[in-house]
Amino acid sequence: MATLFKDVYILDGERERARRGHVVVSKGVIKQVAEGAVPSAADKVIEGRGVHALLPGFVNAHTHAAMTLLRGLGEEAPLMEWLQKKIWPVEAKLKPEHIYHGTAGGILEMLATGTTCFADMYFEMDGVAQAALDAGIRCALCRGITDGVAGPDGVRKVDRSLEDNLRLFDKWHGREGLLTVQLGPHAPYTVPFDDMKRIVATAKQRGIGIHFHFLETEWELGYMQDTLKMRPDEYLRETGILEVRGAVLAHGVWMNPDWADDSGSRAALDFSMATIVHCPKSNMKLGSGVTPLDRWMDKSVGLALGTDGASSNNRLDIWDEMRAAALVHKGATRNPTAVPALDVLRMATLEGARAFGFANKGLIREGWAADLVLVDLDKPHYIGFDEENLASFIVYAGSSADVRGTMVAGKWLYLDGDYKTVNRDEIMQKALESRKSITS
Amino acid sequence: MATLFKDVYILDGERERARRGHVVVSKGVIKQVAEGAVPSAADKVIEGRGVHALLPGFVNAHTHAAMTLLRGLGEEAPLMEWLQKKIWPVEAKLKPEHIYHGTAGGILEMLATGTTCFADMYFEMDGVAQAALDAGIRCALCRGITDGVAGPDGVRKVDRSLEDNLRLFDKWHGREGLLTVQLGPHAPYTVPFDDMKRIVATAKQRGIGIHFHFLETEWELGYMQDTLKMRPDEYLRETGILEVRGAVLAHGVWMNPDWADDSGSRAALDFSMATIVHCPKSNMKLGSGVTPLDRWMDKSVGLALGTDGASSNNRLDIWDEMRAAALVHKGATRNPTAVPALDVLRMATLEGARAFGFANKGLIREGWAADLVLVDLDKPHYIGFDEENLASFIVYAGSSADVRGTMVAGKWLYLDGDYKTVNRDEIMQKALESRKSITS
Repeated sequence: MATLFKDVYILDGERERARRGHVVVSKGVIKQVAEGAVPSAADKVIEGRGVHALLPGFVNAHTHAAMTLLRGLGEEAPLMEWLQKKIWPVEAKLKPEHIYHGTAGGILEMLATGTTCFADMYFEMDGVAQAALDAGIRCALCRGITDGVAGPDGVRKVDRSLEDNLRLFDKWHGREGLLTVQLGPHAPYTVPFDDMKRIVATAKQRGIGIHFHFLETEWELGYMQDTLKMRPDEYLRETGILEVRGAVLAHGVWMNPDWADDSGSRAALDFSMATIVHCPKSNMKLGSGVTPLDRWMDKSVGLALGTDGASSNNRLDIWDEMRAAALVHKGATRNPTAVPALDVLRMATLEGARAFGFANKGLIREGWAADLVLVDLDKPHYIGFDEENLASFIVYAGSSADVRGTMVAGKWLYLDGDYKTVNRDEIMQKALESRKSITS
Repeated sequence: MATLFKDVYILDGERERARRGHVVVSKGVIKQVAEGAVPSAADKVIEGRGVHALLPGFVNAHTHAAMTLLRGLGEEAPLMEWLQKKIWPVEAKLKPEHIYHGTAGGILEMLATGTTCFADMYFEMDGVAQAALDAGIRCALCRGITDGVAGPDGVRKVDRSLEDNLRLFDKWHGREGLLTVQLGPHAPYTVPFDDMKRIVATAKQRGIGIHFHFLETEWELGYMQDTLKMRPDEYLRETGILEVRGAVLAHGVWMNPDWADDSGSRAALDFSMATIVHCPKSNMKLGSGVTPLDRWMDKSVGLALGTDGASSNNRLDIWDEMRAAALVHKGATRNPTAVPALDVLRMATLEGARAFGFANKGLIREGWAADLVLVDLDKPHYIGFDEENLASFIVYAGSSADVRGTMVAGKWLYLDGDYKTVNRDEIMQKALESRKSITS
């Protein structure tokens, strides 16, 4: 069964210029990308009529999808009040089925906005894995590992959650070609230093990636200095975390690009196997600050985009993050040439996929995975688009509501408002019931 | 002919809490707002089913709608290069019919995203007025007045454009209850100081509002000091511009809220008849900087939101500006309580309308104009909304694509994807042709 996208504008994050042409998808991969004559053999034809764009699927490289159920709680409160009074008491009520239903609700939003892969850190992650498989969306998942204190049973939480994370790896990693599993040590301030070293050693030994929060807030700088008695760059060096193949640093707001300045300095860190996941909207909303993204763009480090959870965003929509990333740094640095649209598109696709070990995903190339987004450009806000400017039209003028279809591995998961693999109304109802049960 | 909105969540910028109830519209105004029993007499019923919100129509308080035709030109270039190489040469080719078609294209986008009123400064403004009347959307228009140099005919451009602006006032002000006209002295650096004083005197004498650009860039601070030899606050005082009833200062990025500090200081300025139009996305995109909006919120000054032109945004979508305004200042000030969603909603509705002399518009109150937006909340990204948090769900989680209908003066202009007063396809075609003719 082959699908032909006929007469579409083909754009990905490594192409300066979109091409008008045709794309054939077969057996889950992009079989042909052609200009000129229309390829013939196809069972199904999508008519692009020169007013559609075909993009690689978006990768939401840092989220907690089940927090869809916590959206809007403690809105606009200071961070610690928000966590202590609103988020943690409700999280304590979350049961495994809530995680499944909340994640399924988040997946509805992500599919409708063109996301074909999301990276998730939470707990009760079997529900996340199952919700992703049920929908057919790719997912990079890890168990948030925290807390050196022993529970009533004498077992330390950090040990139990690491064990759980390794169990998840054995159970889900590689499943149906859709899932990868990382280790998820939550953050330097929630995981004891020696445990972090041990988790890193485990990751290196077993060839598992690591996904963790790093320097989301300025407070963490002080924590490192006062409690760990080390600088953040020393922390990265001492734990060996950058030597892990596939180290993903979420947020990184307070990381200093000078650490990666390898102009002969022996003190410089090697970030070449790491990815920083930029979450601009969450960082603004919680008042965490503005990452110096433009300065990281010159370094040898992966850069991806994430929404963070719906409770601090409040969308799971990578279009929003692309636009925020492209705009905020121009404003903050007062430089209209900072953080170009095309780079942002690459972060939102190729670099996110690469960060979590998904190979040959995120570009529109023959032999690459058919993780694709079909975008309707026949809208007033696209007046004036052409081959040269399509990336900037998508990033600055586009809307996630222009997504007509979202395809993963050659299979439509969402098309023209319909979900093809899941029951939308049932998921909505279960999510609403779950919300009610945890907030009342 | 009465329309009943049955079982909707009613929210405006002066209500902490949404109400679930019913709204009756008749003869262009809101006739009844009721909770409990459903009002009976209605010819047409819109079923809200408890999953729709009814909001006041959005006001785009600073734009140049015809620049829809210039969208994406000179993307991500430094400001002066952008203006000199990309914008001005193309603007020089614009003919009156292009202004009409470009504005009509911009109106399509604004109606689809819930805007019921826009404030426009450009040239050949008869086309703007006509496009607004043809669509039935409210418009506050002014002619950009610039340039003290005499043309080939010996007449100074500033005199000719002021004359044109006064002609526009006589011709269009008050037309069909939809239009108001202001004077549009472009900016302190394009209008000679004595002419600005004369324009202000004319405005005061004839009771006309003024809409002008003020301190969009830091460069203007230097211009005032070096060329005009005065501080910006002195400029405002010396020109008398704040004594105009309805002075609208677009951008104001580099204005200092301390100027309005009236804690006994004789030097303080009175902004109580003025409105600053915050254009967060345009200011970021052009690298102009970040307005200290949070500090202005404590002052006695109107605050509204604008998109600026599509060439520096690149959308004409007030939802985007609401979200940007609510997020950016939290990030820039690192304070998650800065610029709350409800205030942003009020800026986007009531305060924008008030700035341009539209009375009784921008709230959902009996007797107020039926300028309304119907929003579909039956979407995954609204999981968890309720009466308490609806404003924050709209601002942080919502999408302009959730707009089902846009009504001005009790008349649907846009409903469920259809434009009721204009021919969408014809406008799109004319806009595309215009784009082609000015860029080729």
